[in-house]
Amino acid sequence: MLVNGRHYRSVWMEKNIVYVINQKLLPQKFEILGMKTVEEVADAIQTMVIRGAPAIGASGAYGVALAMLTYAKNGFSRDFEDKISLLKSTRPTAHDLFHAIDYVLDSIRNETDINKKIKAAKKSAEEYANQSIKACKSIGMFGSELIKDGFRIATHCNAGWLATVDWGTALSPIYFAKRQGKRIKVFVDETRPVLQGARLTSWELRQEGIEHYVISDNALGYLMKKGEIDLMIVGADRIAKNGDVANKIGTYEKALVSKDNHIPFFVAAPTSTLDLKCKSGSEIPIEERSEEEVHYVYGFDDKGEWRRLRTTPKGVKARNPAFDITPAKYITGIITENGIFKPHNIEMALR
Amino acid sequence: MLVNGRHYRSVWMEKNIVYVINQKLLPQKFEILGMKTVEEVADAIQTMVIRGAPAIGASGAYGVALAMLTYAKNGFSRDFEDKISLLKSTRPTAHDLFHAIDYVLDSIRNETDINKKIKAAKKSAEEYANQSIKACKSIGMFGSELIKDGFRIATHCNAGWLATVDWGTALSPIYFAKRQGKRIKVFVDETRPVLQGARLTSWELRQEGIEHYVISDNALGYLMKKGEIDLMIVGADRIAKNGDVANKIGTYEKALVSKDNHIPFFVAAPTSTLDLKCKSGSEIPIEERSEEEVHYVYGFDDKGEWRRLRTTPKGVKARNPAFDITPAKYITGIITENGIFKPHNIEMALR
Repeated sequence: MLVNGRHYRSVWMEKNIVYVINQKLLPQKFEILGMKTVEEVADAIQTMVIRGAPAIGASGAYGVALAMLTYAKNGFSRDFEDKISLLKSTRPTAHDLFHAIDYVLDSIRNETDINKKIKAAKKSAEEYANQSIKACKSIGMFGSELIKDGFRIATHCNAGWLATVDWGTALSPIYFAKRQGKRIKVFVDETRPVLQGARLTSWELRQEGIEHYVISDNALGYLMKKGEIDLMIVGADRIAKNGDVANKIGTYEKALVSKDNHIPFFVAAPTSTLDLKCKSGSEIPIEERSEEEVHYVYGFDDKGEWRRLRTTPKGVKARNPAFDITPAKYITGIITENGIFKPHNIEMALR
Repeated sequence: MLVNGRHYRSVWMEKNIVYVINQKLLPQKFEILGMKTVEEVADAIQTMVIRGAPAIGASGAYGVALAMLTYAKNGFSRDFEDKISLLKSTRPTAHDLFHAIDYVLDSIRNETDINKKIKAAKKSAEEYANQSIKACKSIGMFGSELIKDGFRIATHCNAGWLATVDWGTALSPIYFAKRQGKRIKVFVDETRPVLQGARLTSWELRQEGIEHYVISDNALGYLMKKGEIDLMIVGADRIAKNGDVANKIGTYEKALVSKDNHIPFFVAAPTSTLDLKCKSGSEIPIEERSEEEVHYVYGFDDKGEWRRLRTTPKGVKARNPAFDITPAKYITGIITENGIFKPHNIEMALR
């Protein structure tokens, strides 16, 4: 999608370097970070320089290619395996990461020559990223059918192009609807503690010229009750076999408030998010992140400098679960690259 | 309650000056503000130097006494009425304010002598504040019966002693339970956009030595689902005849998530919060405050200075409703100074 009128992906590889847009500095600063080692990629995922399930997936895929390049230099296969483990351990909830890493590993398994291994890894990582973009475009096409002219759409967190390789999941139908000439307004949950909505979704929508309003995470119920919202679309980090969805903390409450107000609540995600090994949401591991994310808020000071402030008294404790589970029964439908499915039929999306 | 071991009220009058604790600077700085005019009181209410329905009520009562003192000096009754209107127009949602102002006005109506009017206004404002404290203590007594040893209690916003004159509404049962020797933990919603939970509730609980955890407003559903919460108690700004409750934005969602997890959801409020003229919640006026409260967050920088940061990109729009309505059907009970009532029976609390 566009940044100051020029097209970008959130992650790409060029001449053995993996590049990502540094999402920790947005919207203050548009910075591109080049990484030459798996360790750098793992750190970028862990610290949320790059975040969003499909974007983490693609970064993981490119990470395997970097690991292969290092292996070619030092030749320790034990070291290669350690690097893969490191990549897999960065974030526990998003399923795309494991899916993407395995995709690239599969492509090199049957190659014996080291140069062919490298070539295969780079090629399949690129393939994975391109497939991800294609899936997100399909999600946009299918999802835009749900959006009527004049619709006011709510979203939580950032499931835009920054969270994927391009187009986004929850925001892709919105970008399509805009291109179809539909007049739309988007209500953006700020999404504490990391404020992906206030910082990233809002920045994306502004770059694409889509009218939107940032609201506190507490305000959506009020707006729905007042009849100011027609549709809600969110992303997903992992979808269980029964259609339960793990997504950014707070999604569960948004589904409840949509239900209570008879507002369609859709999840948009590529099928790479689907984890059939998890029978239900209760089997999905939920990451609890550092307390610091609750104690501190990042933003610009009056001089435009990027800083952090502590909002809680010193010495106070916090809890910081990063995801929650939305039960399938509260989800109207799941928008995938293969069409829109009822949550209990989500397995059909794979056929 | 205690501040650094010494007892304070949130608002009081001494020698024709109304004093409040400046809640905009907490927890960074404990500052007491003296006010000699109604205009200053109105400004303090509007800018949330003093906030919380019962505390706003008591400030309004003292404000009438200040208006009376000015009237005694300049003798313009039209001016007196303007000042009363100014007070009443500061915040539209909380009912205590109107209740308190009318209480003091009633006390002076039959006095003809100006000095007697002043004396009556000061006396009845003091009476109002004392009755408010008494009501909050009763709420604590009744409410503490709901709290068992080992309970983990969630709360939203600040309905503590700062929000009242003393003791609090939602927090009063917690302070009583603590004094009864019950081991309790409190989960405090940070309560964006103004962060009354992170800043004020957390500060209060720390001063009283009660174990607690600040969480983002998004996290409560996850914790409830995991079985980490036994009870939720919130305050109220206005209660309609049918038991619908207006309270801090986000309360409605918290009631839904409590219901979905079979966790008792109680509202704690003095009967002065009850407005029989509103048949249901839809008749309660809801204040929308400045967008700036969404765009900016206040806190300490790394040097301990109190500052603000902007979290959203420049030029982005926001919406900022300050309250929402929780339907009576999602409320387990309402704790008043006269006992605990089912929402649909709330009128009985007045008998």
